[in-house]
Amino acid sequence: MTGSLDQFFKTYKTEVENRMIHFLEDLNSTAQLKEAMRYSVNAGGKRIRPLLLMASYLAYAKDVEKTYSSAAALEFIHTYSLIHDDLPAMDDDDIRRGKPTNHKAFDEATAILAGDALLTYSFEIVAQDDLLSDREKVYLIKLLSETSGPNGMVAGQVLDMAAESKYVDLEALETIHKLKTGELLKFAVRAGAYLGQATDEQISHLDQYAHYMGLIFQVQDDILDVIGEENKIGKPVKSDEGNLKSTYPQLLGIDGAIQQKERYAALAKEALQNANADESYLFQLIDYFSKRDH
Amino acid sequence: MTGSLDQFFKTYKTEVENRMIHFLEDLNSTAQLKEAMRYSVNAGGKRIRPLLLMASYLAYAKDVEKTYSSAAALEFIHTYSLIHDDLPAMDDDDIRRGKPTNHKAFDEATAILAGDALLTYSFEIVAQDDLLSDREKVYLIKLLSETSGPNGMVAGQVLDMAAESKYVDLEALETIHKLKTGELLKFAVRAGAYLGQATDEQISHLDQYAHYMGLIFQVQDDILDVIGEENKIGKPVKSDEGNLKSTYPQLLGIDGAIQQKERYAALAKEALQNANADESYLFQLIDYFSKRDH
Repeated sequence: MTGSLDQFFKTYKTEVENRMIHFLEDLNSTAQLKEAMRYSVNAGGKRIRPLLLMASYLAYAKDVEKTYSSAAALEFIHTYSLIHDDLPAMDDDDIRRGKPTNHKAFDEATAILAGDALLTYSFEIVAQDDLLSDREKVYLIKLLSETSGPNGMVAGQVLDMAAESKYVDLEALETIHKLKTGELLKFAVRAGAYLGQATDEQISHLDQYAHYMGLIFQVQDDILDVIGEENKIGKPVKSDEGNLKSTYPQLLGIDGAIQQKERYAALAKEALQNANADESYLFQLIDYFSKRDH
Repeated sequence: MTGSLDQFFKTYKTEVENRMIHFLEDLNSTAQLKEAMRYSVNAGGKRIRPLLLMASYLAYAKDVEKTYSSAAALEFIHTYSLIHDDLPAMDDDDIRRGKPTNHKAFDEATAILAGDALLTYSFEIVAQDDLLSDREKVYLIKLLSETSGPNGMVAGQVLDMAAESKYVDLEALETIHKLKTGELLKFAVRAGAYLGQATDEQISHLDQYAHYMGLIFQVQDDILDVIGEENKIGKPVKSDEGNLKSTYPQLLGIDGAIQQKERYAALAKEALQNANADESYLFQLIDYFSKRDH
């Protein structure tokens, strides 16, 4: 049995943030580039991805020391994707988490390069972690490149941009979210479980868990876009509607979207039971994903 | 003793290009993204980096099969760096190798994402190569991320952009070139030698060789910018002078630049002798770098 989710967050969110700062301080790079990387890494956020990785590890093992390099790498890749997504040529966002986006705080060239640098450094962090065996490093790097690259997150961003000016059906919408958000969640859950020495069968059930967690995350994002308060989510409410992007509430109505989310939550719980991980923080994270208000 | 450099190029340039195409065909990504990645990978170029890697391997071993994943990964990373460097927010180039740059042939968002995808996929290619041991994969990935990331190539691009509107001295100029061009050449030479089982001492001499090869490459680039023919180098002659970027001929004069290049060539040859590799293609490549006309 585990403690409260609040306590888990309190303990590990600060710790993973400290590790990220240390990794950036280790860089022997130009001051301007380091500052731009640090700016976006320090811009806050819930750190859901690294915390999910650590929760998955703790479902099977203790002492999270081995998870910090992959947890930080994952958050760096998430951060790079936000920097590039916000660029004028992409979503053209000026504000992210209540602060100027990277290209607004610096300039476009610096933002592109800070993203490139965070992406590349992620692989370096894992490759140089002395606590990991070569076999573990290769597993993590292979999974991280697969989930974040042209078969994963980057493909999701391409499809997402193509879908901006048209309505897409639920299946196409889920494909986009699966790639754009779900792949990194899959990395989080699978990497943690692998480092915690879960069995292959347990990991395949956790893949299902991660899949539904991604969908819950997105449905809730869409619901918040309609009913949330602007100051809580840090961007203009209904910004997705403004650019015609399809959302769950548009396709199913608000009530339908909430029901869909509850179906996904039930399926995520079932997957956790099959993975013998239903008494872990992973279980409590389902409700956290489903009920978050920002 | 080795055969002629012409024969070496003929044999391996086509082969490494075929492998790159196969790696891209293996992708299960969206059609648009694959097309944009393929466009720039197929845009030609001398393939100097992968060929240098293979030449370095052949100085110590036979059967280059083990080199193809790292050779292709290296060229993909070089290609991603060109795509991002050409963007409007960076060098704003419309033409590369006589063809529209990626963001002109597609659009800016696609070009940014195609670059991101090539970078990420490079690590995946190496991580999934069944011919390599886990130890070899980790060595290559660590070296590739170090040389191409915020301690390497990306830092060079940041410094290069900062130097565009001012004159810099020779030392600062060499720092920029060392990072922007030299780091990937270091990867090429070191990765090939490592896979060919060169000793640590030989590899440290080859680092010197790679260092001078990078400088030769850049001096010759600058000389060609002044005296070259536009149709051979595929971009407007004196384009660097137009944006005030410092060059060797500006700092040393044309004759001084040529003398500097010859000093570097002598030092590269000395390093090769110390690495017991002076009867390899690496030796012939010094003159090739020094005398290339495009």
